Amino acid sequence: MIIPVKTNASNYEVHLGENILEDFSKRNKKKLENYDQLIMISDENVWNLHESYVRKNFTAPFNLFLVPSGESCKTFESYFNVQSFLLQNGASRNSAIFALGGGAVGDLIGFVAATFMRGIDFYQIPTTILAHDSSVGGKTAINHPLGKNMIGAFYQPQEVIYDVHFLKSLPLSEVKSGMAEVIKHSLISDSEWVEEFFQITSLSNLEKDQLLQWINKGIRVKAKIVEMDEKESNFRKYLNFGHTYGHAVEAAIGYGKISHGEAVMIGMIPALLLSEKYGQLPKGFAKRFYSLANRLEYNFEQILDCPFEQLAAYMQKDKKTINKQLHFALLETIGKPFIQVVPVDAVRLCDEELRQWIREGK
Amino acid sequence: MIIPVKTNASNYEVHLGENILEDFSKRNKKKLENYDQLIMISDENVWNLHESYVRKNFTAPFNLFLVPSGESCKTFESYFNVQSFLLQNGASRNSAIFALGGGAVGDLIGFVAATFMRGIDFYQIPTTILAHDSSVGGKTAINHPLGKNMIGAFYQPQEVIYDVHFLKSLPLSEVKSGMAEVIKHSLISDSEWVEEFFQITSLSNLEKDQLLQWINKGIRVKAKIVEMDEKESNFRKYLNFGHTYGHAVEAAIGYGKISHGEAVMIGMIPALLLSEKYGQLPKGFAKRFYSLANRLEYNFEQILDCPFEQLAAYMQKDKKTINKQLHFALLETIGKPFIQVVPVDAVRLCDEELRQWIREGK
Repeated sequence: MIIPVKTNASNYEVHLGENILEDFSKRNKKKLENYDQLIMISDENVWNLHESYVRKNFTAPFNLFLVPSGESCKTFESYFNVQSFLLQNGASRNSAIFALGGGAVGDLIGFVAATFMRGIDFYQIPTTILAHDSSVGGKTAINHPLGKNMIGAFYQPQEVIYDVHFLKSLPLSEVKSGMAEVIKHSLISDSEWVEEFFQITSLSNLEKDQLLQWINKGIRVKAKIVEMDEKESNFRKYLNFGHTYGHAVEAAIGYGKISHGEAVMIGMIPALLLSEKYGQLPKGFAKRFYSLANRLEYNFEQILDCPFEQLAAYMQKDKKTINKQLHFALLETIGKPFIQVVPVDAVRLCDEELRQWIREGK
Repeated sequence: MIIPVKTNASNYEVHLGENILEDFSKRNKKKLENYDQLIMISDENVWNLHESYVRKNFTAPFNLFLVPSGESCKTFESYFNVQSFLLQNGASRNSAIFALGGGAVGDLIGFVAATFMRGIDFYQIPTTILAHDSSVGGKTAINHPLGKNMIGAFYQPQEVIYDVHFLKSLPLSEVKSGMAEVIKHSLISDSEWVEEFFQITSLSNLEKDQLLQWINKGIRVKAKIVEMDEKESNFRKYLNFGHTYGHAVEAAIGYGKISHGEAVMIGMIPALLLSEKYGQLPKGFAKRFYSLANRLEYNFEQILDCPFEQLAAYMQKDKKTINKQLHFALLETIGKPFIQVVPVDAVRLCDEELRQWIREGK
């Protein structure tokens, strides 16, 4: 499957399928030969799992650099170390970088590519379900101790090679994290699609073709919105559904201690409750969705340790907060997102309702 | 004077004149009020000299942050510190940064603006002649210990406010540094203009209106080339005239120990000698220009301490070097630049000729 992405900065393709890495190497043989150097950057976990597959199917010669696994690679230190590696190895404006890994590696390496000698070519080879989201659309970033993704750039890859071969090794926690963004993409785009998720009882042993279809749909939703608004001036904020509260949960519990997707899944509940209030979402949908999320084993209890005031403080610091006002992506109905300024007290009420449900379920 | 700059990314204006800072504040009153915060970033020297003028004429309220003076502000550490200041002070995507200072402050702050929350508005308020060049065109960067300007972005300011009031306090060394780029702009654009420089005997006490005219012309040359090629794919490399050898001299002698402009002036001699060889530049022009540069007190003797092999190694690492080949901007004739791949040995011959002249002049 090929999904085109059109932005002001560039047009590129997402190639999606099983065992397509070899096809990429063959299809781009000439282009790859024209670079003076290819640099593959991955993290230690991913490389241990996939080295032999990559060496077999990525047929062009490359230099390899490994960064720490997970969100911890998105530090200034890692950023500097990758730049040093590139300079020490004589990389030039005519070199290309490949980001092999999950969203964290993609974010870091995208930002390196955006800024090394003021920008060189890079390719995304995502290895997680979550990265179906982050690898498309050109958002790149590293973290600052005072905030996640605070330093970055909009910078589009040359191509995204989404080889679902890499998903086979994903642990359930990663499947859950990625599926939260897939489900988010359904909520902001297509009510029939959302109903498919209400039919499933577990995220372990998802059927391969089913998963491929969902990822395909998710990427198309993302690509369409990015095309309308590359720089997040308006429509792109819809993708933030569940993220205002979710990012606060992620920050409060601690990056790495809760997955991004699990935090987003939790964050979608207040967003759905607010959608019932500010939009036309049928009353009770948020509760029904909460039951689904519980069935799929998302763990809500962990937010009971985070007081609402703490979450509210993080929400105030969100990049999308304007003049201290919280801007929530909400749903008019399923598939119809809109942006709403929401007072903190309204969020507090939804937060209290969610906590009540969690306590009752205990 | 208003000089428009058109790039793919954005259109903006360079405002040039004496005491125009107040006009800027008045003209943009509404726009400035719409930002949630203005942050003025300068270096200690510049701020000590110009605080009262800026406070009097820049009438909107702002937060102030000072970075170290000179090239030493372009470190990862400074970059991180400015980002921390912005986050600590609650800056948002709707804040704007003002870079008040020379080229180094502009480069650093432009890169901060390009990457803070993936890009916020910034304004250049250059305070040196040299910055007539660097403040226009959107090249931003910091240094890596392994190379100057290695990490950066193409990112255009909202406006450049070039108030020649700031030039009054410039020491001769800064005038010399800036005038080298002005003279470079004449060489790549206009033979009649070049002849004006042959009429002057000193760079101290330049006539104010004369200087304003030259800066105006220099900015127009720069703006025109940037319009044709924002991302330095082809024409923009012409601006590199004198820089391939000049950057090597700057690196070999040490940043801060020689000014950028003095290094460029030195670098223009080999470039002119190569232009006599590869272009149609009249034989003897390089020598004539060398005499002018000596009369204007550019100090060539300092390169006698840098062996050619050292310079050659730096030239090999230049960002514009492709597949280890040196790409020189040369002159077909005065005002007609072109790009030429030049073997190291040809550069060596020009280097030897220059060293011979310097020794003879001792």
